[in-house]
Amino acid sequence: MRRVAVIGVGVTKFGRHDRTSAELFAEAAADALADAGLPASAVQALYYGNVVGGETEKQLHTGPQAASVLGLPAIPTTRVENACASSHTAFRHAVMEVAAGVSDVVLVGGAERVLHVPTADSTEYFAYCSDASWEQPLGLTFPGVFALVARAHMAKYGTTEEQMAAVAVKNHRHGVHNPKAQFQKEITLEQVMKSAYVADPLKLYDCCPFTDGGAALVLVSEEVARRSRRPVWVLASAAASDWMLLGDKRDLSRVPATERAAAAAYRQAGLRPADVDVVELHDCFTIAEIVATEGLGLFEPGAGARAAEKGETSLGGKIPVNPSGGLKAKGHPIGATGAAQIAEIVTQLRGEAGARQVGGARTGLTHTLGGNTATVLVSLFGRD
Amino acid sequence: MRRVAVIGVGVTKFGRHDRTSAELFAEAAADALADAGLPASAVQALYYGNVVGGETEKQLHTGPQAASVLGLPAIPTTRVENACASSHTAFRHAVMEVAAGVSDVVLVGGAERVLHVPTADSTEYFAYCSDASWEQPLGLTFPGVFALVARAHMAKYGTTEEQMAAVAVKNHRHGVHNPKAQFQKEITLEQVMKSAYVADPLKLYDCCPFTDGGAALVLVSEEVARRSRRPVWVLASAAASDWMLLGDKRDLSRVPATERAAAAAYRQAGLRPADVDVVELHDCFTIAEIVATEGLGLFEPGAGARAAEKGETSLGGKIPVNPSGGLKAKGHPIGATGAAQIAEIVTQLRGEAGARQVGGARTGLTHTLGGNTATVLVSLFGRD
Repeated sequence: MRRVAVIGVGVTKFGRHDRTSAELFAEAAADALADAGLPASAVQALYYGNVVGGETEKQLHTGPQAASVLGLPAIPTTRVENACASSHTAFRHAVMEVAAGVSDVVLVGGAERVLHVPTADSTEYFAYCSDASWEQPLGLTFPGVFALVARAHMAKYGTTEEQMAAVAVKNHRHGVHNPKAQFQKEITLEQVMKSAYVADPLKLYDCCPFTDGGAALVLVSEEVARRSRRPVWVLASAAASDWMLLGDKRDLSRVPATERAAAAAYRQAGLRPADVDVVELHDCFTIAEIVATEGLGLFEPGAGARAAEKGETSLGGKIPVNPSGGLKAKGHPIGATGAAQIAEIVTQLRGEAGARQVGGARTGLTHTLGGNTATVLVSLFGRD
Repeated sequence: MRRVAVIGVGVTKFGRHDRTSAELFAEAAADALADAGLPASAVQALYYGNVVGGETEKQLHTGPQAASVLGLPAIPTTRVENACASSHTAFRHAVMEVAAGVSDVVLVGGAERVLHVPTADSTEYFAYCSDASWEQPLGLTFPGVFALVARAHMAKYGTTEEQMAAVAVKNHRHGVHNPKAQFQKEITLEQVMKSAYVADPLKLYDCCPFTDGGAALVLVSEEVARRSRRPVWVLASAAASDWMLLGDKRDLSRVPATERAAAAAYRQAGLRPADVDVVELHDCFTIAEIVATEGLGLFEPGAGARAAEKGETSLGGKIPVNPSGGLKAKGHPIGATGAAQIAEIVTQLRGEAGARQVGGARTGLTHTLGGNTATVLVSLFGRD
């Protein structure tokens, strides 16, 4: 298998947009190609993540649409939908295509547009990522899923609402320095604690927002990367899943799919958790970040909440998590999220993250979770 | 790259079902695994095609759901949506995974369930595979798209409605011998010609039906295949696309995506059209079969209609096309169609197709088209 590098990244402003997903992706892709110093005509395949486009935009078959908008009508395109992990899944398959020698230059990314439909509708559409026969009829939506995770973690480890709130405060503090973030403002612990309960014990400020946006990455073979100014190498990309139904999971305080994907990724790269300098992970809710830091082996099971509270995951801390502001402050355009996380890590490893730069970062990790903790992707990146 | 073989196939009865897509897939997958002589625990990854599950079943994130129903909660899963070419696209990526040495045993397939919703709704959902900004608002649905293709072919080559009807008659005649087919009955040319116009010049019997069903394939590496009784080798799998908008295409009488994918597949396999013994292709409408036989190089552009009329594509003819009955008689559960076509070619190359067997078939081809002719997959298969 050949080495694969990311040599171009592009991300739209996250927030509300009056453009289609395909148009948002086109903006991100144009930026990624310019960043890579390659013309669109160099692209040999497109992998595209999008989740609720059928529901919010009446648009399926988004692969050739995204390619057409870029003026690339002939290349193979694949739309991937793996809930919130869609564009990270797309990334893993694109890595496989380049590593296998099928293509030398592949464009990967995703986009989502949801803010033009009522929030109640978006919430319902997102819930389609849980089981339609057994879970949706009970009224289970994602705040409810992660409230159950939070309750399990609190019961097992004594995790507190204040500790979860610390994650939100930290990610908003980071997001201030990200011009693409949906929310570029700090919040206080008191604001989080006084915000309304959405699904007890999760309050409004424990939840990431709905977001429109697009993100794109240019992946290339080693030979092409060697002609690039600043390649960031893909050291590993691994996927794992878990039972679809919450009721089939043994212990909601853990996410086995994260533990499986992380173990596979560390094995591929020959690295340990302690080797990682910077992490972008899936903080769809504050408790999700805490459980992810444990599943990734950054902290022992049960130690993630205290670590967050003590600032160990802040910029300047032991292992900075979500310097971009994370899903919480940067926003969560679901089909774009995995690619946007990778774009942040590439930016960090290039040393180009400005006020949110993790000093001397050489190894980065991204983690994206889909649905009821049923899909997880973990990738590792390094610089020369 | 390693050689890849299909060693197991499974297809549900096509027609109306009162089970979910995931359950339909589970039946097909269990049959495919039994056919392969492998336990479910041997499967290392799942690629799953589904198109309108969000719309008709309120179900997204179908990868881990399909894996859970099979009792395989931990493996990587990927849902692919490329309109009607979804499970053929899934197949191509699964081939890449095995060829690259990432996995030795991969399960691929798809399912769709649409007959429990009103036909007008299904028609609308299918139309989401065309452009939501420019085409859907005009009321363009797929019968309309292929009526435009038919008109262009008639204007350029003098193709007649009777010649198109001959395709329907032939595919129904073939379908009689397929116990999994939705329609196992012959129709006459007169019946087709007297059926109601759906979108002039296409009549009801020029159109394939809406269908529920699932299909699955077990793909393995050469090493695993050598322990199998009757491997069918993947000689090539290629994808291509075209402009998303009909208005951007230069000549509706041809499908450039078919021509591109076919050229790439023949090149990969080192074969010519004349080397192919049996074909399963995408006859969503009768004109689509005629245009596909030309795009695949089986006949010169403009010669496909006359060839169909003369019986050259019938069982016993020069190059048998759609011995399964095709989408027209077998049915078209969109997410399952590509995998079901491959299952038929595998069955043919094994010499196990019974009354619809193409005698002495050694090389087979499958062709699947998605949306407004914007995505096409072509794969080639051979036996030892």
